[in-house]
Amino acid sequence: MQQPYLLFLGDETDLQNIKTASGVAYWRPEICLGQFRSEKATVDLGLKDMGLDEAVSAGVKTLLIGIAPDGGKITESWIPAILQALEKGLDIAAGLHDRLSDNTEIAATAKKFGRKLFDVRQPEGPFLVGSGKKRSGNRLLTVGTDCSVGKMFASLALEKEMKASGYNVDFRATGQTGIFIAGSGVSVDTVVADFIAGATETLSPPNNTDHWDIIEGQGSLYHPSYAGVTLGLVHGSQPDKMVLCHDASRTHIDGFPDFPIPEFGACMKGYLAAAHLTNKNASFAGVCINSSGLSEEEFEHYVQKTEDIYGLPCCDPVRTGVAAIVKNLGC
Amino acid sequence: MQQPYLLFLGDETDLQNIKTASGVAYWRPEICLGQFRSEKATVDLGLKDMGLDEAVSAGVKTLLIGIAPDGGKITESWIPAILQALEKGLDIAAGLHDRLSDNTEIAATAKKFGRKLFDVRQPEGPFLVGSGKKRSGNRLLTVGTDCSVGKMFASLALEKEMKASGYNVDFRATGQTGIFIAGSGVSVDTVVADFIAGATETLSPPNNTDHWDIIEGQGSLYHPSYAGVTLGLVHGSQPDKMVLCHDASRTHIDGFPDFPIPEFGACMKGYLAAAHLTNKNASFAGVCINSSGLSEEEFEHYVQKTEDIYGLPCCDPVRTGVAAIVKNLGC
Repeated sequence: MQQPYLLFLGDETDLQNIKTASGVAYWRPEICLGQFRSEKATVDLGLKDMGLDEAVSAGVKTLLIGIAPDGGKITESWIPAILQALEKGLDIAAGLHDRLSDNTEIAATAKKFGRKLFDVRQPEGPFLVGSGKKRSGNRLLTVGTDCSVGKMFASLALEKEMKASGYNVDFRATGQTGIFIAGSGVSVDTVVADFIAGATETLSPPNNTDHWDIIEGQGSLYHPSYAGVTLGLVHGSQPDKMVLCHDASRTHIDGFPDFPIPEFGACMKGYLAAAHLTNKNASFAGVCINSSGLSEEEFEHYVQKTEDIYGLPCCDPVRTGVAAIVKNLGC
Repeated sequence: MQQPYLLFLGDETDLQNIKTASGVAYWRPEICLGQFRSEKATVDLGLKDMGLDEAVSAGVKTLLIGIAPDGGKITESWIPAILQALEKGLDIAAGLHDRLSDNTEIAATAKKFGRKLFDVRQPEGPFLVGSGKKRSGNRLLTVGTDCSVGKMFASLALEKEMKASGYNVDFRATGQTGIFIAGSGVSVDTVVADFIAGATETLSPPNNTDHWDIIEGQGSLYHPSYAGVTLGLVHGSQPDKMVLCHDASRTHIDGFPDFPIPEFGACMKGYLAAAHLTNKNASFAGVCINSSGLSEEEFEHYVQKTEDIYGLPCCDPVRTGVAAIVKNLGC
């Protein structure tokens, strides 16, 4: 995808539905030159409101559909702006269930003006099956006690902190928001099952011995729907280090009241057993928690307990940053 | 798929390439009314050679492409017979990488004569994601130390033995040959990664409390390419019992010399940990080995050692049958 972006918010009124756009704007403000909203929209990313002509003059290359309405469909009211954007020379990127390229009007207009359509939920493939071959360079994978516990956030916080500390580091995206942020990546939960590990190998190719890939985790080994994705991702990543991500307010797998959140110890043991298949030296570098529901005292207690029992630094990327984990990488 | 079948062997000369056809003929001779070969073919399933007219008169409903040449392509020389079969009223089923329905000539002819094309590598879906909800009835899943260690063979041997012992039992297929044998199933390694567990749940729906599904396993938790498929399959199957399948001649994962075959104990521990997420009562009922490379003495020693260490019956479905395992189900 060509950057910078103009973030398309349509006529959205629900902040929950623009999480993709707000994630990109938060982590990569330098590539988000503006937002494009209709008069009906009430959401606001605090970016400059831009028309299409202004965006093109400002150097925008891609209109990013930063909305994910329920059902992931392309809303009819968006179409005129999308068609105009194509005509004015912008590519379009989206992460919806509906493909841009399956909309005949959008596809025809893109073809007519020689513009590209990026559906990041449709992996580019074809992929090879996993080879299990050890690759040069270093890899850190974020893993979780559950889905949606801040793995992408932790990964990007680690990348930022490592860059600031002089590391040679890249963020490798495995979900749609991450892919928009990185400008590339593989939406691993959408690849054909046989190719999960192989696609992850491709995502993080051999590199210099001092280089680190920070690979965005997906799902959880303890999730009854998605654990297969997570295991393939662990095997393909061959992580040297893992960071366990957890939401301190979560008592059971989100939406699955019969599935308790695993204890950190059991959880790390499971991830290590999985990781050791393709990297005998895999170990944990720390724990990242979302502690937004905890008081300062509760948080301190939590961190102390985690460090005492598991001997690992415990950070909240928002509250404390992740310097303690980066320090613990020991490189 | 409508049965019975006429098994199409084309002009094949390599026995390795007709494993699908020979598997179906071995396990379901009653639905394989004949074989269809060109004069160039040297392979022979021992079935009656039949022309298309004779097959139709005999009651055949589906021409089964029982060949898997390297690359999984539809060979040009097969096309005339396929088109004639459609014209004479047969459906066509195949498990190739190339889809029958992507061949314009085949697709047009099927449409013209109102016949169906089954590409069993293309899962029918759409599927739901796994729910983790416990289903009524009993389930046995075959799992492996590696790929291609006899999981389908063991599953069908167990189904046969259980039927003979009066069990109410169904074989549930997860690979192409299995699907032809059962007449239905889900090729789990071809579903989109997010739906592995969900597709497996669909494959084995709630049933009577005395009913058993014997679910064909795929891959191995210890395979660097395919473990994600296996884990999703374990979670979606919710097995009450598992049977570990192993090829006694295998020292490392086939094609992966750096990945040793796991010890039975570690391997069963890994499968149990995985299975307990969705079924707390999961346990092993036995071990099935392919002992074709072992002498009688070596085999006896192997069986004794396995039983002494793990307390489980160890069978070779070909050599001994699987009665000891069925007895150990304890129902």
